[in-house]
Amino acid sequence: MTTRIDGRKLAQQILSKVAEDVAAAGASGRVPGLATILVGDDPASAVYVAAKRRAIREAGMRDFHRALPARATQEEVAAVIDELAADPAVSGILLQLPLPGRLDAPALIDRIPVTKDVDGLTTASAGLLARGVHGLRPCTPLGVIELLDAEGIPIEGARAAVVGWGELVGRPLAQLLLRRGATVTVAHEFTTDLAAVTRPADIVVAATGVRGLIGPEHIKPGAAVIDVGMHRTEAGLTGDVRAAELEGIAGCITPVPGGVGPMTIAMLMRNTLYAAEWERAAA
Amino acid sequence: MTTRIDGRKLAQQILSKVAEDVAAAGASGRVPGLATILVGDDPASAVYVAAKRRAIREAGMRDFHRALPARATQEEVAAVIDELAADPAVSGILLQLPLPGRLDAPALIDRIPVTKDVDGLTTASAGLLARGVHGLRPCTPLGVIELLDAEGIPIEGARAAVVGWGELVGRPLAQLLLRRGATVTVAHEFTTDLAAVTRPADIVVAATGVRGLIGPEHIKPGAAVIDVGMHRTEAGLTGDVRAAELEGIAGCITPVPGGVGPMTIAMLMRNTLYAAEWERAAA
Repeated sequence: MTTRIDGRKLAQQILSKVAEDVAAAGASGRVPGLATILVGDDPASAVYVAAKRRAIREAGMRDFHRALPARATQEEVAAVIDELAADPAVSGILLQLPLPGRLDAPALIDRIPVTKDVDGLTTASAGLLARGVHGLRPCTPLGVIELLDAEGIPIEGARAAVVGWGELVGRPLAQLLLRRGATVTVAHEFTTDLAAVTRPADIVVAATGVRGLIGPEHIKPGAAVIDVGMHRTEAGLTGDVRAAELEGIAGCITPVPGGVGPMTIAMLMRNTLYAAEWERAAA
Repeated sequence: MTTRIDGRKLAQQILSKVAEDVAAAGASGRVPGLATILVGDDPASAVYVAAKRRAIREAGMRDFHRALPARATQEEVAAVIDELAADPAVSGILLQLPLPGRLDAPALIDRIPVTKDVDGLTTASAGLLARGVHGLRPCTPLGVIELLDAEGIPIEGARAAVVGWGELVGRPLAQLLLRRGATVTVAHEFTTDLAAVTRPADIVVAATGVRGLIGPEHIKPGAAVIDVGMHRTEAGLTGDVRAAELEGIAGCITPVPGGVGPMTIAMLMRNTLYAAEWERAAA
């Protein structure tokens, strides 16, 4: 029997707890606020930003939003970030990616102050994570850790394989798993024998962007399989894992959709709450 | 036949090249300078700093040195760092570790400007490494990569096991190996079956601080074994690897002493040269 981990349910529990904490903060006149910045009119980005803004309002936080045209210059986007950075009502700043190709995205991301970096993607936040000191961590990796914990999967002493070494998921997740005491192997496009890397693992995380890459040949019976992939197909959303083929092999698996996806927004809301607390503690 | 990798010879070649480049920079009136800061009177630290200062002078660079008493306060050490940070003749700043326990070492390290961080240990440098952008990297991991390259050991596509997840070696080295395309496993004190992790590896790096931890049971025939350990015994210096037992098993191995050790100072000199070039490019 392979357990399907319900990311929607866990995300909802986390969001309820965040809403409670926001209400408590609000009672003391300190309502956290999240600013989303959307540059251009990419339809997928618009959908993601709308979902985040809905979550902000449902959590009882203040929703700051800035929409800039696709032709916005580096200086114009920078000015918006600087204005939000200086605004004490704004606890967190989220610059929706990808940006139009002409813009220097890393430079813009690095304008976000580390205390407001709710996506955890600035160089400063990456440094805090690498050194293991207090800071805001990227949302999807945080969500993966929460799912493992909620499912009661031991991390300390476990062998984990992180397949994919991207900046949003694989790289920070490897750090988080190591920090929790897992023995971590990172695989990627240069890995010659992927199954040899993943088969010894108790926890396999697929964040490759390659649809259906991971199948039964990669998974040890009983392992926890976390699918971070998200691919639109005619049959609906599907992931990096051939989930149906793992039935009866994996100990548990996150479905796509309804696994890791909902957790990302939940962790963004929690990061915004943490950012508000951090800025208050630092003030 | 197990090849013993000659770190002294390679370090000397790198130091000669650095001295040439320093002479060329000096001909244009831009001599790089390295400032070493020694707090207190730990004899081992004094020996290390003396060796670094000797290398500075031999490379033709300017030797700035500050010695502070063991009772120096956080503010006094910070003031020295700030003064050196503001001095355009100082290309790099090295704060010799460990500091006396009362001092907040991470806070002092983070006062070093990222362009002068020749040890690569600031949070800012860790962030640049994590993101894979231009910056100064820690010296010992750089030396390990140089040794592998000089020995002609392929890194891209290789399986590497990094044993030890410390801030000076294991953590940054894992990043450097990943960046070069190795499939990297990081093991540490919570790893339950170390041999299972190291035996598939083409490259095994031991940076554990545990004398003689790694033996033939851990090593695949033909693997490259890099020993970062350094332990003083009555019989002389020895490492984390039981080197004699790997004779005829390992493809190559770094001896202790004379392997990784000499490379660390060579990479510090090269980092100082790079720091001088970086500051000039940024000016």
